[in-house]
Amino acid sequence: MSVRVDLNADLGEGFGIWRLGDDDAMLDIVTSANVACGFHAGDPAGMVRTCRAAVERGVRIGAQVSYLDLAGFGRRFIDAEPEDLRADVIYQIGALQAIAQSAGSSVSYVKPHGALYNSIVTHRDQAMAVAAAVHAVDPALPVLGLAGSAFFEAATELGLRTVAEAFADRAYRADGQLVSRRQPDAVLHDPERIAERVTSMVRHGQVTAIDGSTVAVTVESVCVHGDSPDAVRIAHAVRSRLEAEGATLAAFTG
Amino acid sequence: MSVRVDLNADLGEGFGIWRLGDDDAMLDIVTSANVACGFHAGDPAGMVRTCRAAVERGVRIGAQVSYLDLAGFGRRFIDAEPEDLRADVIYQIGALQAIAQSAGSSVSYVKPHGALYNSIVTHRDQAMAVAAAVHAVDPALPVLGLAGSAFFEAATELGLRTVAEAFADRAYRADGQLVSRRQPDAVLHDPERIAERVTSMVRHGQVTAIDGSTVAVTVESVCVHGDSPDAVRIAHAVRSRLEAEGATLAAFTG
Amino acid sequence: MSVRVDLNADLGEGFGIWRLGDDDAMLDIVTSANVACGFHAGDPAGMVRTCRAAVERGVRIGAQVSYLDLAGFGRRFIDAEPEDLRADVIYQIGALQAIAQSAGSSVSYVKPHGALYNSIVTHRDQAMAVAAAVHAVDPALPVLGLAGSAFFEAATELGLRTVAEAFADRAYRADGQLVSRRQPDAVLHDPERIAERVTSMVRHGQVTAIDGSTVAVTVESVCVHGDSPDAVRIAHAVRSRLEAEGATLAAFTG
Amino acid sequence: MSVRVDLNADLGEGFGIWRLGDDDAMLDIVTSANVACGFHAGDPAGMVRTCRAAVERGVRIGAQVSYLDLAGFGRRFIDAEPEDLRADVIYQIGALQAIAQSAGSSVSYVKPHGALYNSIVTHRDQAMAVAAAVHAVDPALPVLGLAGSAFFEAATELGLRTVAEAFADRAYRADGQLVSRRQPDAVLHDPERIAERVTSMVRHGQVTAIDGSTVAVTVESVCVHGDSPDAVRIAHAVRSRLEAEGATLAAFTG
Repeated sequence: MSVRVDLNADLGEGFGIWRLGDDDAMLDIVTSANVACGFHAGDPAGMVRTCRAAVERGVRIGAQVSYLDLAGFGRRFIDAEPEDLRADVIYQIGALQAIAQSAGSSVSYVKPHGALYNSIVTHRDQAMAVAAAVHAVDPALPVLGLAGSAFFEAATELGLRTVAEAFADRAYRADGQLVSRRQPDAVLHDPERIAERVTSMVRHGQVTAIDGSTVAVTVESVCVHGDSPDAVRIAHAVRSRLEAEGATLAAFTG
Repeated sequence: MSVRVDLNADLGEGFGIWRLGDDDAMLDIVTSANVACGFHAGDPAGMVRTCRAAVERGVRIGAQVSYLDLAGFGRRFIDAEPEDLRADVIYQIGALQAIAQSAGSSVSYVKPHGALYNSIVTHRDQAMAVAAAVHAVDPALPVLGLAGSAFFEAATELGLRTVAEAFADRAYRADGQLVSRRQPDAVLHDPERIAERVTSMVRHGQVTAIDGSTVAVTVESVCVHGDSPDAVRIAHAVRSRLEAEGATLAAFTG
Repeated sequence: MSVRVDLNADLGEGFGIWRLGDDDAMLDIVTSANVACGFHAGDPAGMVRTCRAAVERGVRIGAQVSYLDLAGFGRRFIDAEPEDLRADVIYQIGALQAIAQSAGSSVSYVKPHGALYNSIVTHRDQAMAVAAAVHAVDPALPVLGLAGSAFFEAATELGLRTVAEAFADRAYRADGQLVSRRQPDAVLHDPERIAERVTSMVRHGQVTAIDGSTVAVTVESVCVHGDSPDAVRIAHAVRSRLEAEGATLAAFTG
Repeated sequence: MSVRVDLNADLGEGFGIWRLGDDDAMLDIVTSANVACGFHAGDPAGMVRTCRAAVERGVRIGAQVSYLDLAGFGRRFIDAEPEDLRADVIYQIGALQAIAQSAGSSVSYVKPHGALYNSIVTHRDQAMAVAAAVHAVDPALPVLGLAGSAFFEAATELGLRTVAEAFADRAYRADGQLVSRRQPDAVLHDPERIAERVTSMVRHGQVTAIDGSTVAVTVESVCVHGDSPDAVRIAHAVRSRLEAEGATLAAFTG
């Protein structure tokens, strides 16, 4: 397998005194860090720490943008007007750009978080609002997301580069979308089984859906989670297996 | 009087459904707009509207940065750690940079707001934190503030350009600092008297303090307020008087 | 017309430095004040001021509960989990209870605000969550809302007293629900036409829908808005007309 | 030692997805739970969980009130106006009262948190504001705090019962106040040494200050912290030692 693949994870998802996950451990594993921008997690001082830690390890920084919802960790759909959402996303990217720059780096891509990620798979107005926000900040910024989504359609329409990602530990529906976290079995837990799935996705471009069918997936980046000790083990297993199979772990190109 | 002076005002200080002052009227008067960045006022969609309105009228955009305090409108001192404050200020400037750019402009300077403005007249650690934040974002960004302040000292130490402003409608103490808003007579209300004071400050570099003494003031920019119908009348009177006296109203150079 | 009807309005909907509407004028007109509880508007100090002003005029206090959404003024649907929503509503009612008591009064009823009001017309889980919250605080607290809604069904199931309200200045659909604010003609503006409509609703229990059909409405309370000079004129016209027609304006019984 | 002493700890100090400390372990040790009320930590759903867990174990509930400062965890002084602070505290107590009641209990006392706790040791206006808030909600509510503080003076002036607490793991100054957390050696870490200190405070009413001098302390309640595995061990050691010495662990009377 002489493929090249990116490993991304959500990082900097604490707030104030609170921490989530083991960012340092994850930064030793991933090639791209989706840094929370303050709307679902990530206060400014925490964003500075996360960016510095990413820079130290040569990990690339992306803006993980969200609905404004600290109490709900950005996991609740909000029926935001497109104009408001567009402004919210520009604001978040800009805030992280300044912080990344102060840490000696820059924002290399944008990835929507949580409920926003899910809603713009199908919600065309919000999808276009997010794409328009990225475009307004920098038309050269790639977006990370789900192949076949309304978001990727909108991004493509605006000329943005789209980078398709697969989820290491999430179950897929037969239509290629993610099983909702509110469903049982939405999240996988066994590191070896997950590593096996990822290898299949990266090598063969396919994965077994929750109903047993085989689904085609496009993978330029693999998303691993980092918010539990298990998650770090899983991420480690994924990276090790991919390397063992000869894949090159590297950030996708801009 | 062949002097050149900038007129600045705090703008975009609504939040969500709430508005404060008549931004459109003020944008027809001032040459520099201190745009609130979300920490004391100014949600992202409002920031977009304010930047667009400024761009339409050729008014320059500055970042009006604040303590994080929506409930207190940034008017309460917060004993923030310098590292946190530095990150907060970088975050705010970056957010406005992206929004200003999406509106076809950019951030041309930084001005602290309210309690932060007042505290860094003397609070050296916070003063250095704000100056360091501006420097981290862009060493070429000027800062607007009070001559003789700890903030200007810190900014100068870092090589930032400092732009001294005078307040049209605020009473001065004999030491050249502002009388606290919590004191009686801290704010002047008569448009003609205010216009007269400003002319004296711009022409002669001096103003009468609250105790009757004469205080020297350095003025590259005059701050006018815009949060009441009176304020618009005052700002208009100041601009008219300055023009009548032959002053050129223009944004200060970067 | 020897009927008795309550007039309610949303009050205390400022936040921090920001104000919305003319609370004092409205308190001279209405018999029940829906006081914002901090989640879409209404900081604690403002809640104290609103409660004191209501107490001075003998106006009854109700808790106007909302999704947590200051930036969106509670006008955006949030896909909150019922358990979270229930807790949010208990929290808001309790906060206002303590403040009302400190002002010499108490909370006499609960009315959902904005998007929450609208969503629980049909969203059964959220409707039950709000009803359960009211019941948990005090099973004797009436709820103000829309007759025929899922909210009233849930409230009735729990044994809460439901008080049906009509909207003075909002257009109705043929099914008796409100036309969304995002539609044109959702809001009426002419004071005399509005007063006429209200009189018809209170006297005959019916109103003309946006499609010209006649809709039956149950009215124990009439909601008037107070967030503009026009709104005060409308509220005044509604009260005057009702009094001229012999209706008694009085708070509904608990 | 036939003394009776209360053990209190700060609990429910997570927010949204974030957790802090091991509340379940602490609830098995303490007799009084200072429940965060949403201003420095503690979202409504978390407050419900904490109150239910306290009720299950027969632990008493107190309102842990704070400055409004989620980002700073209430550890930063805010120069709030007394009127605003009074309203903020009433709001927090009321919110917790409704939640405690929905969990089958009630609020039995009030304890200020963090920077507010520290500032009202000396800040008379804020001290009176907090005392007045408690008094406005219920003159029978005791307040937990530092003997000799401006807060206790104000509370006493209003007729509130004051309950003096000692800190198990904090260093004392020679004047009986706490060493600031910003100083080195402000916090003790050795469970046995801490248990020894507490026993001395409870038995003899005295403790060794950071400068070696002996300071008299009044102790009706001992505050233990719960935000780390160590903290749980320390709390356990304190309770075990006190019991071994014959002290009765029980909530103070109202």
